[in-house]
Amino acid sequence: MTHTLQGIAASKGIAIAKAFVLEQPDLTVEKKSVKAADEETQRFQEAVGTAKAELEQIKEKTLKEMGEDKAEIFAAHLLVLEDPEIINGVTTKIKDEHVNAEFALKELADMYVSMFEGMDNEYMKERAADIRDVSERVLSHLLGVTNTSLAEIQEETVVIAEDLTPSDTAQLNLDYVLGFATDIGGRTSHSAIMARSMEIPAVVGTKSATSSVSTGDMVVVDGMDGKVLINPEEGELETYREKLDAYLRQKEEWAKLVNEPSVTMDSHQVELAANIGTPDDMEGVLANGAEGIGLYRTEFLYMGRSELPSEEEQFKAYKSVLEQMDGKPVVIRTLDIGGDKDLPYLDLPKEMNPFLGFRALRLCLEETDMFRTQLRALLRASAFGTLKIMFPMVATVEEVREAKAILQNVKEELVKEGKDVSDNVEVGIMVEIPATAVAADIFAKEVDFFSIGTNDLIQYTLAADRMSEKVAHLYQPYHPAILRLVKNVIDAAHKEGKWAGMCGEMAGEQTAVPLLTGLGLDEFSMSATSVLPARSQLRQLSKQETEQLAKEAVQLSTADEVAQLVKDKGFIVS
Amino acid sequence: MTHTLQGIAASKGIAIAKAFVLEQPDLTVEKKSVKAADEETQRFQEAVGTAKAELEQIKEKTLKEMGEDKAEIFAAHLLVLEDPEIINGVTTKIKDEHVNAEFALKELADMYVSMFEGMDNEYMKERAADIRDVSERVLSHLLGVTNTSLAEIQEETVVIAEDLTPSDTAQLNLDYVLGFATDIGGRTSHSAIMARSMEIPAVVGTKSATSSVSTGDMVVVDGMDGKVLINPEEGELETYREKLDAYLRQKEEWAKLVNEPSVTMDSHQVELAANIGTPDDMEGVLANGAEGIGLYRTEFLYMGRSELPSEEEQFKAYKSVLEQMDGKPVVIRTLDIGGDKDLPYLDLPKEMNPFLGFRALRLCLEETDMFRTQLRALLRASAFGTLKIMFPMVATVEEVREAKAILQNVKEELVKEGKDVSDNVEVGIMVEIPATAVAADIFAKEVDFFSIGTNDLIQYTLAADRMSEKVAHLYQPYHPAILRLVKNVIDAAHKEGKWAGMCGEMAGEQTAVPLLTGLGLDEFSMSATSVLPARSQLRQLSKQETEQLAKEAVQLSTADEVAQLVKDKGFIVS
Repeated sequence: MTHTLQGIAASKGIAIAKAFVLEQPDLTVEKKSVKAADEETQRFQEAVGTAKAELEQIKEKTLKEMGEDKAEIFAAHLLVLEDPEIINGVTTKIKDEHVNAEFALKELADMYVSMFEGMDNEYMKERAADIRDVSERVLSHLLGVTNTSLAEIQEETVVIAEDLTPSDTAQLNLDYVLGFATDIGGRTSHSAIMARSMEIPAVVGTKSATSSVSTGDMVVVDGMDGKVLINPEEGELETYREKLDAYLRQKEEWAKLVNEPSVTMDSHQVELAANIGTPDDMEGVLANGAEGIGLYRTEFLYMGRSELPSEEEQFKAYKSVLEQMDGKPVVIRTLDIGGDKDLPYLDLPKEMNPFLGFRALRLCLEETDMFRTQLRALLRASAFGTLKIMFPMVATVEEVREAKAILQNVKEELVKEGKDVSDNVEVGIMVEIPATAVAADIFAKEVDFFSIGTNDLIQYTLAADRMSEKVAHLYQPYHPAILRLVKNVIDAAHKEGKWAGMCGEMAGEQTAVPLLTGLGLDEFSMSATSVLPARSQLRQLSKQETEQLAKEAVQLSTADEVAQLVKDKGFIVS
Repeated sequence: MTHTLQGIAASKGIAIAKAFVLEQPDLTVEKKSVKAADEETQRFQEAVGTAKAELEQIKEKTLKEMGEDKAEIFAAHLLVLEDPEIINGVTTKIKDEHVNAEFALKELADMYVSMFEGMDNEYMKERAADIRDVSERVLSHLLGVTNTSLAEIQEETVVIAEDLTPSDTAQLNLDYVLGFATDIGGRTSHSAIMARSMEIPAVVGTKSATSSVSTGDMVVVDGMDGKVLINPEEGELETYREKLDAYLRQKEEWAKLVNEPSVTMDSHQVELAANIGTPDDMEGVLANGAEGIGLYRTEFLYMGRSELPSEEEQFKAYKSVLEQMDGKPVVIRTLDIGGDKDLPYLDLPKEMNPFLGFRALRLCLEETDMFRTQLRALLRASAFGTLKIMFPMVATVEEVREAKAILQNVKEELVKEGKDVSDNVEVGIMVEIPATAVAADIFAKEVDFFSIGTNDLIQYTLAADRMSEKVAHLYQPYHPAILRLVKNVIDAAHKEGKWAGMCGEMAGEQTAVPLLTGLGLDEFSMSATSVLPARSQLRQLSKQETEQLAKEAVQLSTADEVAQLVKDKGFIVS
């Protein structure tokens, strides 16, 4: 009988091929008492040196064979090895705690990794993956263990691994690697994010893929249902080949919609936009026919470095995205970062509950020099497209007024300097704090638009940290309270003649699209690869029917009842 | 010229007397490398032994001179010295990290203290104070430093100290100590809480009281305005004597209201209830004429011990409160605790954002044995008064249904056992999570009453941890969104014929009383000492006028505007 593993569907599609099982080197670390701190420090620095040389080499090779995008990951790794907080952290530990280099490095890296992983931000999570990856590279040199390489794959393959590090994914040659499955990870782990961006099928969190599969086994990775089939029988294999064909046909159908309008059967038009993190993401945005950028997260510009990004550097990034969008709207969010992460050049407080702490706009209103630099870069870029500026983590009207006053002041300064600045920059806010959703009518008078950030709004409204496994069941996008708040925000915007969008994960979900259409949402912003499926779904909806659906949904008692209603009414095309 | 310090008004009243400045022993700890772990461990254990003997002696003396209440604090301290997590934690640190006992103890104690201090619970904060106090006692023995004593005070005095530990406050002889002022601390620090419970004037957080005042200086502590006057001129002294007289007269006026109804001028009656933490708090409740207990926090029963409290132990505590209230309503909240604190007998996860984590009802619905024991104790106690059971941290209707099902099942079990159980126990929920406030109409169908927990509701609704100094300005009870949520909860309850109360700090505030009266709140629960001032204020209000006030307030844009409106309309009697 076929052995089937159930994991988490991380990236759509189906891969059918022979398995390549990636061996994990044994990086077990023992704690040892070391008196000769100088010698131990030297041993550590030699390993760092070897890792650097190795990374330079891989970077060059990747640049030649796979392009600049992929090579950048290794530039980031090299930066980690030059980060004084990490390097000096290890040497201090060796000296003060009289421990061996392996133990000092492992402890410090684990601390940083768990800090970054606990954050509601894909880029922070990638930084955690980077640190783990680099520290393992240095560890392997300290321990004298060799890493196996994915570069040797030369035929069509499904990769099976405990986990895939950034180094691993950068080395995947997509001519041969059709998909992968891992033991650990969730929908937002590094490997899952990469799979979606590379558009290859993936299942993560299977727990036992590496122990169940041997290299050479025939394997099916079903990225829709989160299944991994090991040595399936011919009949099953046939079924999956058909499923794969159907999926590819559907993708072709979706692809035909790239230049079609996002419109319901009864002619109600909305905007389907994409979320991005860097200008590098633009390729996917354009390929998937997004009608705008609904959320450009600017955090990445500030991370993995030792000083603030300059105005010029930011200006170039913003300008690049605006130009590529060629007049289509681009919503750029000002810095959304806080004390749960390490920005060595900012002295951020360590807080007990960082999600309820000093972050985003709260931080920017205090660090006004930093804020003004970003606003200068944004306004200068505004001359090159249709820019909309968005402030995150707004809880009070005073904050909006203060931020707008600073923006106005910066604008006047630029005009005085003779800089070209657009006069049509809309200014809006994220609605992600319950207070702002509840009192949306008050805020609607102060801004040009709202964008509902469901990831945080759900978390705060239900008082459930979605990073905490024990309360993950309370992270409920379809809780009646969430639907009512969304409705309140949209209605408040419309009453003042403003528009309302959504840039949380929810915006692209099959269950959400009809509900949000019915509630009157104007703009849906999602990962680029979700745009075409959403457009396809939307074009089969009747606005009038979705209005009726939404009306019923907000009266229900539980999230399960809401999801069931959407299903029962036939709004989910499976 | 008089030297005046501005601090935080921590406890009402005015004290005028000569100063006694409490000397702080120098407990500076150096980190030393220690190879002879056994000897160091022995040195630590000897210091613990000495501290224990000393505590036994103080406990006996306190019991004789000041009663059981005050003596209990030293029993709690003795328990800290028997806590294996702490004692073994220190000896392990000595052994593993080759450090001196002083350093190991300080590090461990600091960790626990900061853990407990970061919690939204007065009892947890007291536990932090206990641990700091005990660890300093042991440290002083390790360092060979002597503590000065407050016991030697034999004339009318104002105590000036850096901070007052539980050991210090337990030794205050209220025949002589008229008030105190400290350098550090806030409104919810241990010393402030104790001052309010002892009803002596106090100012905390003056920053420089100990460096500005010398023993023997004439000092005025103004617990209303948070001022400390050092060697004031005769004219000023006279002004303060008059102010003190006026305050004492006002207290006398308030005292006359002990048995008067809580009713507005136009005959609208509400319930003014008290919040308590243990049966020991009942004395203050009865003395201040509270008409019920609006919140009995049961956490204290579970803390500072090594195993769960038995059913019998809980039953006795609940029964004692119910009997003392003699038929008046008593709302008892089931366990409200989570992973931000250490309950050694529960294996709670360490979470990144404990306020958004696995706690309170979420925990109880998983730890059902523990939950059932508490519910058994509660239901058995229900035969002795008017019990109302309240579940904390409710976010979904499913949680309410599950908790009620368990309660029903426990009741049937007790009835089968032939136990006496009241059939009129109301079951309600805390409304402290935004989702529950937003969808209050749905929840109103499932419960008998609501009690709005403003401390948490404000924190979640504004996404601002009030323990975090950097965002404390965003903890806004009068944010229009909070008022609207409160209104929504009250209206939803009334529509279903249920009652709505409030048990957060806000309920007793002068600005809040007229607003909440206008919104139709049925029950106001506050610290016992706030009941009489609130009753006095209420009896001067017109319900009709407060309704008009509330109507205007919910339409304002900011918290400041709301507070200003209440003032401008003359609702604050200063």
